[in-house]
Amino acid sequence: MVALVKRVALVGGIHGGEFTGVFLVKKFQQSPLIIQRDGIEAITLLANEKAIATGRRYIDTDLNRTFNRQDLANPQLNNYEQSLAKKIARRIEQEKIDLIVDLHSTTANMGLTIILHDTHPYVLRLAAYLVEVNPEIKILQYNQNKDAPYLRNLVELGLTIEVGAVANGLLDARLFQATEELIHTILDYLEADSQGKPLSVPTSFTFYSVIRTVDYPRNQNGEIQAMIHPQLQFQDYQPLNPGNPMFVTFNGEEIFYQGNETVYPVFINEAAYYEKAIAMHFTQKQEWEAASN
Amino acid sequence: MVALVKRVALVGGIHGGEFTGVFLVKKFQQSPLIIQRDGIEAITLLANEKAIATGRRYIDTDLNRTFNRQDLANPQLNNYEQSLAKKIARRIEQEKIDLIVDLHSTTANMGLTIILHDTHPYVLRLAAYLVEVNPEIKILQYNQNKDAPYLRNLVELGLTIEVGAVANGLLDARLFQATEELIHTILDYLEADSQGKPLSVPTSFTFYSVIRTVDYPRNQNGEIQAMIHPQLQFQDYQPLNPGNPMFVTFNGEEIFYQGNETVYPVFINEAAYYEKAIAMHFTQKQEWEAASN
Repeated sequence: MVALVKRVALVGGIHGGEFTGVFLVKKFQQSPLIIQRDGIEAITLLANEKAIATGRRYIDTDLNRTFNRQDLANPQLNNYEQSLAKKIARRIEQEKIDLIVDLHSTTANMGLTIILHDTHPYVLRLAAYLVEVNPEIKILQYNQNKDAPYLRNLVELGLTIEVGAVANGLLDARLFQATEELIHTILDYLEADSQGKPLSVPTSFTFYSVIRTVDYPRNQNGEIQAMIHPQLQFQDYQPLNPGNPMFVTFNGEEIFYQGNETVYPVFINEAAYYEKAIAMHFTQKQEWEAASN
Repeated sequence: MVALVKRVALVGGIHGGEFTGVFLVKKFQQSPLIIQRDGIEAITLLANEKAIATGRRYIDTDLNRTFNRQDLANPQLNNYEQSLAKKIARRIEQEKIDLIVDLHSTTANMGLTIILHDTHPYVLRLAAYLVEVNPEIKILQYNQNKDAPYLRNLVELGLTIEVGAVANGLLDARLFQATEELIHTILDYLEADSQGKPLSVPTSFTFYSVIRTVDYPRNQNGEIQAMIHPQLQFQDYQPLNPGNPMFVTFNGEEIFYQGNETVYPVFINEAAYYEKAIAMHFTQKQEWEAASN
């Protein structure tokens, strides 16, 4: 297999309040030897420094929704994050980045999640390796077009690391350490690959594919009318079966899942998604088979 | 015992991101019968609507540090929260409020905590009753002078309800329901009291008295150099003994508690306290005895 990846960008702080990635990138910048690997150039980037300084997701608009090609080429889009996105896109291009690793955290109980945004065989093999090294890692897959507004769409190969549950604006030591270990595993894999000694990967792994988005019950003014049900809270990646409770209203009435098939919700009760009309994503559990790729 | 309390203010959203209190107050405003009690007038207040709308703690400055008498009388202090504090102080005065119940949440694992800011016998008896009804409630006590900058210092009788662990900007249904139940217990107590039929209270209860504040290890630029140790994370109100781990640096070195006596930390890893140089408060465990008051 031809090694595609020579230059990787480790990006933290696309969202200012997600401190795990912010402080990992700061650590790597202070001690660059930690991320040094033969044949691999790892570039670090603290993306949204103004939002980081205030511990907020963003200043004017969500930076990780400003990276589609059309918007980047539009000189009229120039609020703080829109301008920043153009600067970051230029940097990624100038650095000739092959792979973006984008570090995020979530208030949902998603443990260590790798988000894949396409089905490029290189990234699928890497994901297979990561799950083999640490079976607690979950692989989440979105089907997105090439023009999605996310950072990792700037290059052909990208993945997001999403860790939780952790509140915004603070550090959870266990998740910090687990995320760092995951980054080392990725770099080790890339190093072996770039040296022409690719590591063996399993021929199959389980992943979760997003099938649809579910909003909170809302009134005509858009105000939420119910909360995530206590039995669903923190149950990311667990089966939600027809008839299981999903929400509870402020008066205590339960709202049940009305679908016909078992789904596996993720991003349950992510704080940043209240404004995006997302209470959770439903996923299907699937198997990736090397032979079919 | 003479009933002191006829008019109580239930205040949510002093900090915009603390949704438990915000949505409880919204519920009470939509269904005022819920908080109606004989002989008691319960006033509701959504304090910082601009911060609530953006899900942030504050816009310009922490509202709950702007209520000392001197600042309220200073016309030169007029940023958003400073002006708002003056408006709220006028409202509390006009409404002739006897007791303020200030609803907060925390990213620390403090369960249902009642914070007392003085040792007024009326509030101590109320606290004793609440602990009897729900033994999971913790009583936390600060020794503060009358000129502290907090909302509840506006009147003689005040208490804060602090619930967690919950991230900012989201609702945890279990904590929402438990907090509402606690408010009902308070109102029931006040009602009985105002009817001249005071409820019996236990003659003693355990409380935790704040003795000092501990910051994160920081470098010369004020940047934190360590995280809460995984063994201490979420262990609010549990004993911290000499030699127990407190922090872990970004390189994995452990930092241990060097004191000579057992303490009981609270507000461990509260997100809003990173900027206030507070990693946790140390408390001592004490007994309140009715006879000694």
